[in-house]
Amino acid sequence: MAIIKLHGSPISTNTQRPLVCLYEKHLHFDFVPVDMSAGSHKQSPFISLNPFGQVPALEDGDLQLFESRAISNYIAEEYSEKGTQLVSSNSKEKAISSVWMEVEAHKFEPAAAKLSWELFYKPMFGMNTDQAVVKENEAKLEKVLDVYENRLTKSKYLGGECIGLADLYHLPNLQCLLGTTLKKLFESRPHVNAWVTDITARPAWSKVLALRG
Amino acid sequence: MAIIKLHGSPISTNTQRPLVCLYEKHLHFDFVPVDMSAGSHKQSPFISLNPFGQVPALEDGDLQLFESRAISNYIAEEYSEKGTQLVSSNSKEKAISSVWMEVEAHKFEPAAAKLSWELFYKPMFGMNTDQAVVKENEAKLEKVLDVYENRLTKSKYLGGECIGLADLYHLPNLQCLLGTTLKKLFESRPHVNAWVTDITARPAWSKVLALRG
Repeated sequence: MAIIKLHGSPISTNTQRPLVCLYEKHLHFDFVPVDMSAGSHKQSPFISLNPFGQVPALEDGDLQLFESRAISNYIAEEYSEKGTQLVSSNSKEKAISSVWMEVEAHKFEPAAAKLSWELFYKPMFGMNTDQAVVKENEAKLEKVLDVYENRLTKSKYLGGECIGLADLYHLPNLQCLLGTTLKKLFESRPHVNAWVTDITARPAWSKVLALRG
Repeated sequence: MAIIKLHGSPISTNTQRPLVCLYEKHLHFDFVPVDMSAGSHKQSPFISLNPFGQVPALEDGDLQLFESRAISNYIAEEYSEKGTQLVSSNSKEKAISSVWMEVEAHKFEPAAAKLSWELFYKPMFGMNTDQAVVKENEAKLEKVLDVYENRLTKSKYLGGECIGLADLYHLPNLQCLLGTTLKKLFESRPHVNAWVTDITARPAWSKVLALRG
């Protein structure tokens, strides 16, 4: 069997999404670093893996995939018997979990990614934070977290009683925000706080952070 | 068996996404109109179906779902034996199709939805189009369509040789844009044009347009 190759950058939140899934699955894989500072993601050979020129991309034998959530979902489904079960085999549980995966993609990430950029990455790169963008997106994130707080009174994880892709998908942006003043938004909501404590403590996530360095 | 209920508005692009799937599947369902002009989507009882207060929502027996793509995916999977096959049973074909579903969600829709709003919905509501927003998003959409043109030289549909969710997900915003000056962006790319002609001609899509009125 060919070894799985994940191409990406360990500091990229989109790369971290499939990385944590690979670790949860205890899969052996090669991590192929893409030098984004040199623009390698916009050039051949990477561009042949993703025509949009963005990390990550996956190779599994002759299968080539891009888009972090498509890659993660493939890993969870194709290797369902290995490591942590990340998708339910019950169709209704799976449908409910996919609702919360969509919420992550369309509600949480749009606000969280802008906040991560302004408060985590910009200072790292010596750039100035735009406080107007922070204010606007902090308000949006609060509304999302209010829905999560209510949801998490009903089930331990967003998708149900077991951890799944919907939870893991949040980790990359969540980790960035925990290193900023916005940590308070998570800590002030008891059920969200317990969920954050739980999912960030997963050994698979520690491995992603170790790779990030 | 309980009758499926889809709650939404026939002029909402997000509602049209699961609607076309229900028609492709030849499923019997009740369409429950949500009066958005009266703000019904932000109030009880609808808010109990979607805490974010947005259409559409689905009820299938005791299962309640929201987020248009989660609903559509559930319909395609749960009723795989009915009507048009919308997801492949081959895991690798399914993974490739899911890449293009993610591309629709994260590349096509962000630009296309803003353009639909500026050029289709705003004139309908007697509002003024913001030409700066149009210019910025037209350039983004052109880049996406260049990737599609290349992809569609390799397979008849985005996900492969058979129509699937990835194609259908484009229809709502695509239909809006075909009624604007941006029709030229699709017509000027031969493979994109053939794909657009094919998918917009589907009887299931005609039923969505008939409901829209």
